[in-house]
Amino acid sequence: MESVDFIFTNALVLTMDLNFNQYNPGAVAISGNKIVSAGPTEEITRKYAGGEIIDCQGKVLMPGLVNGHTHVPMNLLRGLADDLRLDVWLQGYMLPVERQFVSPDFVRLGTLLACAELIRSGVTTFCDMYYFEEDVARAADEAGLRAICGETILKFPTPDAQSFEESLAMARDFIQRWKDHPRIIPAVAPHAPYTCTEEILKACASLAVEFDVPLVIHLAETELETENSRNENGMPVIPYVKKMNLFDAKVIAAHCVHIDEGEMRTLQHYDAGVVHNPSSNLKLGSGIAPVKRMIDLDLSVGIGTDGVASNNDLDMFEEIRLAAFLAKGSTGDPTAIPAQTAVLMATRMGAKALHIDHLTGSIEPGKVADLILVNINQPHNIPKFQRDPSGIYAQLVYAAKSTDVTDVMIDGKLVLRNQKLLTLQEESLFARAQDYARQIDAFLIEREGSVLAKLIAIGGASEEESFEVQAKVPVQDIQPILARLNQPGITILRKRHYKEYDTYFSFGDPDQGWLRYREDHFVAPNGEVTHVRNRLTHIGLMGEHHFPQQVLLSRSRYIAPATQSLRFYREYFKPSQEYQIDKERLRFLVRYQETEFYINLDTMITPKLGAFLEVKSRTWSRKDAERKSRIIPVLIQYLGADPEKSLSEDYIEMIGQ
Amino acid sequence: MESVDFIFTNALVLTMDLNFNQYNPGAVAISGNKIVSAGPTEEITRKYAGGEIIDCQGKVLMPGLVNGHTHVPMNLLRGLADDLRLDVWLQGYMLPVERQFVSPDFVRLGTLLACAELIRSGVTTFCDMYYFEEDVARAADEAGLRAICGETILKFPTPDAQSFEESLAMARDFIQRWKDHPRIIPAVAPHAPYTCTEEILKACASLAVEFDVPLVIHLAETELETENSRNENGMPVIPYVKKMNLFDAKVIAAHCVHIDEGEMRTLQHYDAGVVHNPSSNLKLGSGIAPVKRMIDLDLSVGIGTDGVASNNDLDMFEEIRLAAFLAKGSTGDPTAIPAQTAVLMATRMGAKALHIDHLTGSIEPGKVADLILVNINQPHNIPKFQRDPSGIYAQLVYAAKSTDVTDVMIDGKLVLRNQKLLTLQEESLFARAQDYARQIDAFLIEREGSVLAKLIAIGGASEEESFEVQAKVPVQDIQPILARLNQPGITILRKRHYKEYDTYFSFGDPDQGWLRYREDHFVAPNGEVTHVRNRLTHIGLMGEHHFPQQVLLSRSRYIAPATQSLRFYREYFKPSQEYQIDKERLRFLVRYQETEFYINLDTMITPKLGAFLEVKSRTWSRKDAERKSRIIPVLIQYLGADPEKSLSEDYIEMIGQ
Repeated sequence: MESVDFIFTNALVLTMDLNFNQYNPGAVAISGNKIVSAGPTEEITRKYAGGEIIDCQGKVLMPGLVNGHTHVPMNLLRGLADDLRLDVWLQGYMLPVERQFVSPDFVRLGTLLACAELIRSGVTTFCDMYYFEEDVARAADEAGLRAICGETILKFPTPDAQSFEESLAMARDFIQRWKDHPRIIPAVAPHAPYTCTEEILKACASLAVEFDVPLVIHLAETELETENSRNENGMPVIPYVKKMNLFDAKVIAAHCVHIDEGEMRTLQHYDAGVVHNPSSNLKLGSGIAPVKRMIDLDLSVGIGTDGVASNNDLDMFEEIRLAAFLAKGSTGDPTAIPAQTAVLMATRMGAKALHIDHLTGSIEPGKVADLILVNINQPHNIPKFQRDPSGIYAQLVYAAKSTDVTDVMIDGKLVLRNQKLLTLQEESLFARAQDYARQIDAFLIEREGSVLAKLIAIGGASEEESFEVQAKVPVQDIQPILARLNQPGITILRKRHYKEYDTYFSFGDPDQGWLRYREDHFVAPNGEVTHVRNRLTHIGLMGEHHFPQQVLLSRSRYIAPATQSLRFYREYFKPSQEYQIDKERLRFLVRYQETEFYINLDTMITPKLGAFLEVKSRTWSRKDAERKSRIIPVLIQYLGADPEKSLSEDYIEMIGQ
Repeated sequence: MESVDFIFTNALVLTMDLNFNQYNPGAVAISGNKIVSAGPTEEITRKYAGGEIIDCQGKVLMPGLVNGHTHVPMNLLRGLADDLRLDVWLQGYMLPVERQFVSPDFVRLGTLLACAELIRSGVTTFCDMYYFEEDVARAADEAGLRAICGETILKFPTPDAQSFEESLAMARDFIQRWKDHPRIIPAVAPHAPYTCTEEILKACASLAVEFDVPLVIHLAETELETENSRNENGMPVIPYVKKMNLFDAKVIAAHCVHIDEGEMRTLQHYDAGVVHNPSSNLKLGSGIAPVKRMIDLDLSVGIGTDGVASNNDLDMFEEIRLAAFLAKGSTGDPTAIPAQTAVLMATRMGAKALHIDHLTGSIEPGKVADLILVNINQPHNIPKFQRDPSGIYAQLVYAAKSTDVTDVMIDGKLVLRNQKLLTLQEESLFARAQDYARQIDAFLIEREGSVLAKLIAIGGASEEESFEVQAKVPVQDIQPILARLNQPGITILRKRHYKEYDTYFSFGDPDQGWLRYREDHFVAPNGEVTHVRNRLTHIGLMGEHHFPQQVLLSRSRYIAPATQSLRFYREYFKPSQEYQIDKERLRFLVRYQETEFYINLDTMITPKLGAFLEVKSRTWSRKDAERKSRIIPVLIQYLGADPEKSLSEDYIEMIGQ
C-alpha cells in the first residue's frame, strides 16, 4: 500500500493519453503536485491510500482544459462595445479606453476576475498576452492557475511603455525573474507582424531563444493582414515571420485563419503551435480557420477564447463545441473534427501547442495534477449511451456546459470544490469591477457627447489656427483670373492642382459643427494623379463674425490625417446627415501686399455650383485676421472679380443644413 | 389601484416590442394569463396591486424564448450516434432505432425530458414535428409549455402509421380534437419535399388551410436536396413546394440553408416563417443559412435547436449566440445580425415565424404572460456597462448562458421558480430515460455484432436461394467458347454485357463473411453504357461443401439494392479490409439438358487474372443443387474447356483473405 496525498475514485476517467484510455469506474492517485497513477477504481484503491479521497460519483474526471489564447485583463472590458467593425471597435473604443484606464491595478483586477471565470469553467492553464504582464502573472499565481504570460511588444507606445525598447526591456526583466516559477511561464509577445517592425520581431525571437521561453503572437487573423503582407513583404504572413527568425523560438501562433497549405507545413515543420479562436474569429468577421486541414497535416492546434472583448466570455466548452461544429459546417463533412479530437485540442494537443505537453494536458503518471470533474448527469445531458466508447466525448462536446464543472485541481491543489472557489473572493472583485465600469462609462459618455472629443479620442488630431478669413466669388470662367495672377504685385510662391472629394458629416445638434472627410488627389502637370491624401477636419461654430466685405471669420478647426476608411468614420461618429462635395481645385500660395494668401480656383463637380474664386488665410491672431480681411477685397478686385458679389457661406452651407 | 394576479418588480425589463422599450428598474403586471402592463417599477406598483409579487433584484425580465424547430421525443436519443455522415447517421442509426423503439410511451417520456430542458433554459414556446404527435401534445400540455405540434407525414411507413393515408387521417383527427386548446396548436408536418409525394404535399396544404393551422416542414436543408429538386422537378425547392400549393397554408419552414434570393422573396411574399437551426446545420455539415440576407429582405426568421440527435441539446442561448456569430463569420461583416436582432429572432420575430406573434414573443399589454428571468450578475457576465442601451442584448447573446435562467412563467403560470421545476418530477424521468438507453444500447450492440444484422437493419435486403453451384475454368481466349455457345443442345435465353466493379469488404472475424458492393454497368451492343445498377450482397460461410467435380456449393446470400454510396457502406460497416475486383462480363442465360444455367465469360481487369468461363446456378433445393453440379462439368466440356481445371474459389478468394 503506497501512501499518496489525494485519490479521486469512482469517476469516468478520461485520460486523454495516447491510447485514449478510459476507466469507468476509475480513479487517479496524486502525490504532491504529480499524478502517480490512473486506473480502475478497484486497482487504484488497492494499491494506494490517500490523505484525502474524493468520491466522484460517476462524474467525468479529465485533464483540465487549456485555454490557448486570451487577454485576461480585458475581462474588465466585457460588453463595452459589440457588433462593430474591427477598426471602429479597436480604434474607436478598445484603444482609447485602454490608453485611459490600463494600469497595474486594472490588469490585476481584470486577471483575478478572469481567473474566477476560467476556474469555474474548467480551465487549468491559459496563455495570455497583454500589458503589465507581470501583474497578470502575479494575479494568476495567486488564483492558483497555470499560465503562460506574454508581455506584449508593439511598435506604438503602449499603456505600459513609451517605446518598444522599453517594452523589450520589461519583457527581459519579467522573464528573468519568473522563468523558474512552478506554474507561471513568462513569455515575450510581439503583438502581430503588422504592428511590429522587423527589428522588434527579430529581437523578440532572440529573447525567447535566449531564455527558452515561448513567443506568443497573433498571425494571419484577417484576410486583410495576409493581403497586406503579400503587398508589402512580397510574401504571406508565415514566410515573412520565418524570415524574421521567429521560428527559432517556440512559437504560439493565435488565429492562423488565412494561411495556405504551404504555410501550414512550415508551422508544422518548425513545431509551432496554432491556437484556434472560433468565437472571436466569427464575432469579428475574420473567418473560419482551416483547422481540419491543419490537423490532417499533423499540426498541433489548440483552442482559445481570445479576450472577452471579442467573445464575450472565457467559456472553453463553447469554444470546443464550436471548433467541432465549424470544421463540419465549413467543409460540409460531418465527420470532420469528431468530438474526441475537439477534446484533445483543448487538452493534450492544446498543451502541445503551448509547448508544455510534457507537463500537462493528459492524465498520465508523472504529469502535474491539473484535473477537473464534470457532472454529465444533467437534464441537458440525459440519457447516457454506453455502446460507443467515443460517445462520452460527444456528451462533453455537444451537450455538456461549462457550468457542469464542479471541481478543479491545479498542480495538485483544489481550487474549486463543489462549485465553490477556494482561492478567490468573487464578491469584492465584482464590486471593484463595477467601479471600473462606471468610470469607463463616464469617460465614454462624456466623449460620445462631443464629436470633437471623439475625434481627439482616436488620436492624431491637432488644432489649427483659430481665425480663418475667406471670401468666395462666383465666376463665369477661371481663365481670365489665371491670366491676372501673373500681374505685377502678385508673387506666386506655390501652385498645386487637386481633385478634392469631400464628405461632410452633420449631427443632430448644430453645436457639434461639421466633420469633413477629404480625399485630396494631387494632379501632376501631365494630368496624372500622383498621390492621394485623406484628411479629417472638424469645423466648429462657423461664421461667428462677419467683416463688412463679406469676409468670414471662423473658429475651432481640428485637422487629423484620416488613417481609417470613410466607412470607419461613418460608423464611429454616426452622423445624422452626410453631404458630398467634389471639386477641381487650382491652389496658389501667393504674396500680395506683403501678405500670404491662398487663392483657390474651384470648379465644382458635385453639386454643379459653377466656378469660384476663393481667397483665404489662417492665423492665430484676431488682429492679423482683421488686417487680412481688409486686403482680401482689394486682391479680389485686382484679379478682375467683383468683391461685392462675395459670399459668406462655405460650400457646405450652400447645400447642407 | 387596479388588482392583478401577479407583479414582477425591480427587473431590467426588455419588452422586445416594436420600439424595443426597456424599463430599469421595471415591472410587469399580469392578470390571468395576460400581460396587463409593463413600465417603470414605480409606475406599475403605483397603479397595480397583485396577489403575488416577485422582486426580480435586477435580473433581466424578457419574453420567453421561442424554439422554432425541434423534435422533442428525440431527447431519448441524445448522444446515440455522433460525428457521422448524414446518411450513416439517419439510415444506419436513427431510422432503425426509431423503427424499433418509437411508441406512445417513448414519445411521451422523450417529450417530458425535453420540456424539463426547455423550461430550464428559458423556452416558453416550441414548434415540434414527430410521430405520435398527440402524445407530444399531451406531455407538453402537462409540462405547461406552449407548443405547435406537427404530426409528421412521410411517403414511407412510419413508427405510427403504415401509410401516408393513415398519417393524414391521424393528423386530421389530432387537429380536430386539439385546435381550441389554449396552449397547444396542432399542425400538420409533411416531413420534406423529397420524402413526400406531390399528393401528400397538396393534401397537407389543404388540411392546414381547412383548419387554419400551421404547416411545418423541412425545406432546402442540404445542397443535395436543392440539386435533386432542380434535376427532378426542374426547379429549386421553394418554387416546387409553391406549385404544390404549400403557401396556401401558414408555412413554418425549417432550415432553408440553400435558397436563393428569389426563393427568399417568395417566402417573404407568402408570409412563410423560416426557422434557422445553426448548430444542427453545422453539425450535420449542411452549411450556413444566409440569414442576414433573409432579414434584410424582411423575412421572418426564427431560431431553433432542431432535435438533440443533431445538436445535442435544446439550448436556445447557444443557438442565439451562434446565429449572431455565423452571420458575421460567413459574411465577414461583424455588424451582421447584431445582438438585438438575434434576441428578436428568438422572441417576437420567432413568434411571427410561427404565426403566433399576436399571442406571444414580446412583453406588451394583451399578450400572454410568457416570461423569463435571467440573472446577468454572474462571474461570466461581469461587469455591466450602461452607456449603450443595446449593450444588454450583447450581454444576453454573447455572455449569458441558459443556466442563468432562474424563473419561467408560461401563460401566466410559474413553471420554474429559482431554478426549481414546478410541473415535472425530473428524477423519475431520468431513471426511465436511462432504461430506454440501456435497451437501445443492447439492440445496437447485438446488431453491431453482425454484418448481416446491420445490413438487414438498414432495410431492403432479401435472402437469395441458399444453394449456389458454380465452376470456374481459366481460359486463354473467350472467342472459341462464344462460338461453341451456338452449338445444338444449348439454347440462349438471354444475353447481357456488363462491366462489373466490385468492392469486397472483409471483417476481422471471418465468420462475418464478405460484403460485396457491385456497380453493374450495362453495355449496349453499340458499346455505350445504358444504365448502372448498384447492389450489395452479403456472402456468408462460403465453400462449405465441395462436390467431386470442383463445383462449389454456397450458403447464405443476402442481396439488397445499394441505394447509398460506397462511402456510406464503408463508414457504416467499418470493414477491416477492402478489395477491388473489376471485370468485363458476357453473361448468358442458357438452357442445357432441360436445366437453366448462367454462363459468364469474364475478362478480369483488376486484378489482371486473365479470362474465365464460369457456369452457375442458384436453387433453394439441395437435391436440385446436386443434380446441377453433375451437369456443370459436362457443359464445360461441351463448351471446349477442361472441367478438370475448374477452381473452387470465388474471385475474392483468389486475391483476398
